[in-house]
Amino acid sequence: MTYCVGLMLDRGLVMMADTRTNAGIDNISTFRKMFTWSVPGERVLMLMTAGNLATTQSVVSLLDERTKAVDEREPSILAVPSMFQAARLVAETLRGVIAQPGTQGQRAEGTFNATLILGGQIKGGPVRLFLIYPEGNFIEAGGDTPFFQIGETKYGRPILVRAYDRAMSFESVVKLLLVSFDSTVKANLSVAPPFDVQLYEAGSFTLEPGLRIAANDPYYQAISAGWGEALKTALDSLPDFDLGQDHQGAHKAG
Amino acid sequence: MTYCVGLMLDRGLVMMADTRTNAGIDNISTFRKMFTWSVPGERVLMLMTAGNLATTQSVVSLLDERTKAVDEREPSILAVPSMFQAARLVAETLRGVIAQPGTQGQRAEGTFNATLILGGQIKGGPVRLFLIYPEGNFIEAGGDTPFFQIGETKYGRPILVRAYDRAMSFESVVKLLLVSFDSTVKANLSVAPPFDVQLYEAGSFTLEPGLRIAANDPYYQAISAGWGEALKTALDSLPDFDLGQDHQGAHKAG
Repeated sequence: MTYCVGLMLDRGLVMMADTRTNAGIDNISTFRKMFTWSVPGERVLMLMTAGNLATTQSVVSLLDERTKAVDEREPSILAVPSMFQAARLVAETLRGVIAQPGTQGQRAEGTFNATLILGGQIKGGPVRLFLIYPEGNFIEAGGDTPFFQIGETKYGRPILVRAYDRAMSFESVVKLLLVSFDSTVKANLSVAPPFDVQLYEAGSFTLEPGLRIAANDPYYQAISAGWGEALKTALDSLPDFDLGQDHQGAHKAG
Repeated sequence: MTYCVGLMLDRGLVMMADTRTNAGIDNISTFRKMFTWSVPGERVLMLMTAGNLATTQSVVSLLDERTKAVDEREPSILAVPSMFQAARLVAETLRGVIAQPGTQGQRAEGTFNATLILGGQIKGGPVRLFLIYPEGNFIEAGGDTPFFQIGETKYGRPILVRAYDRAMSFESVVKLLLVSFDSTVKANLSVAPPFDVQLYEAGSFTLEPGLRIAANDPYYQAISAGWGEALKTALDSLPDFDLGQDHQGAHKAG
């Protein structure tokens, strides 16, 4: 499995991805699922991947034009004029990679699937965030739903739904995401640190250095340990259920 | 879908079940998923069901012996000598109901499946809690995992893992469960109030009246509204991520 989240902020974009891959439960590895392209002052693109690792690595290699010699590469993702066209290019590449095994007699549906999150900004346009499906179509984050999750999305969702706010600072959002990732890691063995974090400040057109947060990172350990206590305090702050009182709309049944 | 949780406490047992059933997304209904049997002073049995409604209703009717006239009924679940034998009886009944359509040319696997949680106490034995699989086998809650969830288990799990404690009072546990159910309701349309709650005090051999908590219950509304704020306060109580500081085990990548 995998867990990746991309969040729109007033200040820009935050992307976080775990690095665990697994084939069954007894064959786990660490692979990067966060990829970036940029032309300083002109465009920044960030991609996160969930699904079949052969598929997602192939998509990234094709976008990078790694089929060509190093000095002949001019990735078209660095030439498309808008984020929408970038999303189309990535989606088409993904669909092509998934379709290929099917033409050679292998069952491609399901097994070779992948889902991607693409975010970034290209000069002349706003910051945009897309969720790209294996079918090659995609949706864009908007005001009502300003974030996307892929992979094992359920355990970490309630805290995002409750506490995320577009006005948050980068520092608070990384904390929020670590809580969301930690809840997921505690419940699903196929999601694990290190986590890759990529921040992008709207209008900067500058790719910040990526951060990698390891399992033994003191801050992550402090959040992981502190969150249990903070939750208990939060629960204590709410009134207990009153067994003696009759609740409106309640009925007693024997 | 469905969401049911059964929790062992030092004081006894707590069971909570939602009441929404759905066939597709445009055909929803309200049905009870919590069933009880008791012989005052001798035994209390509580059953929660998730899965195909025809299957689970059939299991409950068979356990109730509703195939017989009312005055001829002596449900064997009221005669078995131990909780283990009660779990075997329920599991055998479930397996039989699921297997039946298969013998008549219908595909029984998957479609007609159901999973059950059985808890209670029979004189001479301790309080026990079982998770019963559609295959007709079952597992028992123990010290390491003193609770079971069935149905849509993921959204509501992190809060249970973090905040649940066997020493809790019934009043606190109902609050905790309402938070867990509320997180699930907010994320999955096929889980919804009213919620049925059943408390059992160890050694009492007395079935308490069941509580039903409706969507408009003022306490549930207070918990649902207060939890968002409480979570934000909890998050604020943890230190923000320091973007300037180099984190141990972190590396920067371009």
